[in-house]
Amino acid sequence: MLYGALEAGGTKMVLGCYDENGTLLDRTVMPTETPAITFPKMLDYFKDKGIGALGIGSFGPLCLNPGDPHFGAIGATPKLPWRGFDLMGEFARGLGVPVALDTDVNAAALAEAQLGAAKGLGSCLYVTIGTGVGGGVIVDGKPIHGLMHPELGHMLLVPDPRDPMPQGVCPYHKGCLEGLAAGPSMEKRWGLSAKELPDDHVAWDIEANYLAQMCFNAILTLSPEKIILGGGVLQRKHIFPLIRRKTLSMLNGYIECLADSDLSDYIVEPGLDTASGLTGSYLLARQAADN
Amino acid sequence: MLYGALEAGGTKMVLGCYDENGTLLDRTVMPTETPAITFPKMLDYFKDKGIGALGIGSFGPLCLNPGDPHFGAIGATPKLPWRGFDLMGEFARGLGVPVALDTDVNAAALAEAQLGAAKGLGSCLYVTIGTGVGGGVIVDGKPIHGLMHPELGHMLLVPDPRDPMPQGVCPYHKGCLEGLAAGPSMEKRWGLSAKELPDDHVAWDIEANYLAQMCFNAILTLSPEKIILGGGVLQRKHIFPLIRRKTLSMLNGYIECLADSDLSDYIVEPGLDTASGLTGSYLLARQAADN
Repeated sequence: MLYGALEAGGTKMVLGCYDENGTLLDRTVMPTETPAITFPKMLDYFKDKGIGALGIGSFGPLCLNPGDPHFGAIGATPKLPWRGFDLMGEFARGLGVPVALDTDVNAAALAEAQLGAAKGLGSCLYVTIGTGVGGGVIVDGKPIHGLMHPELGHMLLVPDPRDPMPQGVCPYHKGCLEGLAAGPSMEKRWGLSAKELPDDHVAWDIEANYLAQMCFNAILTLSPEKIILGGGVLQRKHIFPLIRRKTLSMLNGYIECLADSDLSDYIVEPGLDTASGLTGSYLLARQAADN
Repeated sequence: MLYGALEAGGTKMVLGCYDENGTLLDRTVMPTETPAITFPKMLDYFKDKGIGALGIGSFGPLCLNPGDPHFGAIGATPKLPWRGFDLMGEFARGLGVPVALDTDVNAAALAEAQLGAAKGLGSCLYVTIGTGVGGGVIVDGKPIHGLMHPELGHMLLVPDPRDPMPQGVCPYHKGCLEGLAAGPSMEKRWGLSAKELPDDHVAWDIEANYLAQMCFNAILTLSPEKIILGGGVLQRKHIFPLIRRKTLSMLNGYIECLADSDLSDYIVEPGLDTASGLTGSYLLARQAADN
């Protein structure tokens, strides 16, 4: 059987086709326009491939509660044409195969837990810091849902006293992680993008403080066996040791099993590089086929 | 078969004996002294009862990783005589029956999820605010472990500008939840205990701000279907509407499925009153018997 995988993003759609062994046979990218334009193109792509199941890791918010009439649909996204679009239902009806849906970051976390940096572990947290901040959480081998799904990017943080813009840029929340630490916030604050800011700019120490607070809170709340940090901003690898050092300093010995470590094995880069989202969608397709 | 239940606290031990139907047949309380004094007494209590399995919900930190040589033991607690005590192993050897161990708050969360305020739901968060702050988390019907177990009481919070003591009293962390919102912190800050502070004292509005921040972060991180708040400080029920209002205001409509609610069905009191800890220990005993 072949498996379809869709990584649905706000700016682009990544579509792939995998074989039984998890080998990526084909991959294509298209811009995210409106559902009326983009959905038929995606449908055509997967129809041609003769897939037996489809997995989707999508931008959110998503309705993932099977008891809800909107199960499988996109929620109140700022991308208005996609608001309310029944992503799972439309593909299921259009392709006539089982379809599984989760958030892009839950899919990425699943891939990292099964095949990547957290391979062999039952739990992990995957956070991407790019144009936004999103977090996926694996507990006992499965993505967390509950009420909805984690929206970890909007956790409240303690403002850094050196931050000239301590309220951040999130239109919903004053001083939340995404508003303080995503790429657009860095660029607005310093007039330089994360790509351009020199290694020794104070921006990185402040950014590391915010990401360390997130790691600290996540350790105390979720108790993950691994924290994986990816996304555009984290391409600037020099920030990793800063984040680890500040997380350790905040923990202050409280979590014994981390106290003797420098966290270089605990707060890590993705094991699947930028492929975790699509790979996770493939894993969701396998789950859909098995159910 | 009869089931033994132990709620192991820092000041007292609550021991109970349940029948197959979950009826509490016998209950006794003893002070928590040293393991040398208290452990033999507890062992005698359970030996007399002829139980077939024992469940323990204990103060922590605990080692709950089956692969760890300290599995089942108490970790770096400030109660020094109990540090390193092999709670699970000693009872298993002393009684010759299966023993299950979890944190007191995970046990309470389990009881609330199976029989209490979150009955019928797969997920919930239980937080107790008393002499300390502890949190138990249920995901997919089971307590979270992962690296260790949640230590949610030490989450970082944004200081309230009206707080005369914004660093809190936690010896480990500046400005963490327990240091800012537990009973001893309120008493130190205001010179009056949570029991004594009048309803209209600004203390309650500040306390509600801190607990709302915790609820907000927990919703975004864990996505629980219910948040249950208990413990001594929360006996002052007038704080519940304040916490709900502030949580809604912080969410600012971001979590759609909560936006049209006043959260009176979402942030709630325990359904089992103060019995959730012992009841959860009984449920752990049943799990131990089944394994």
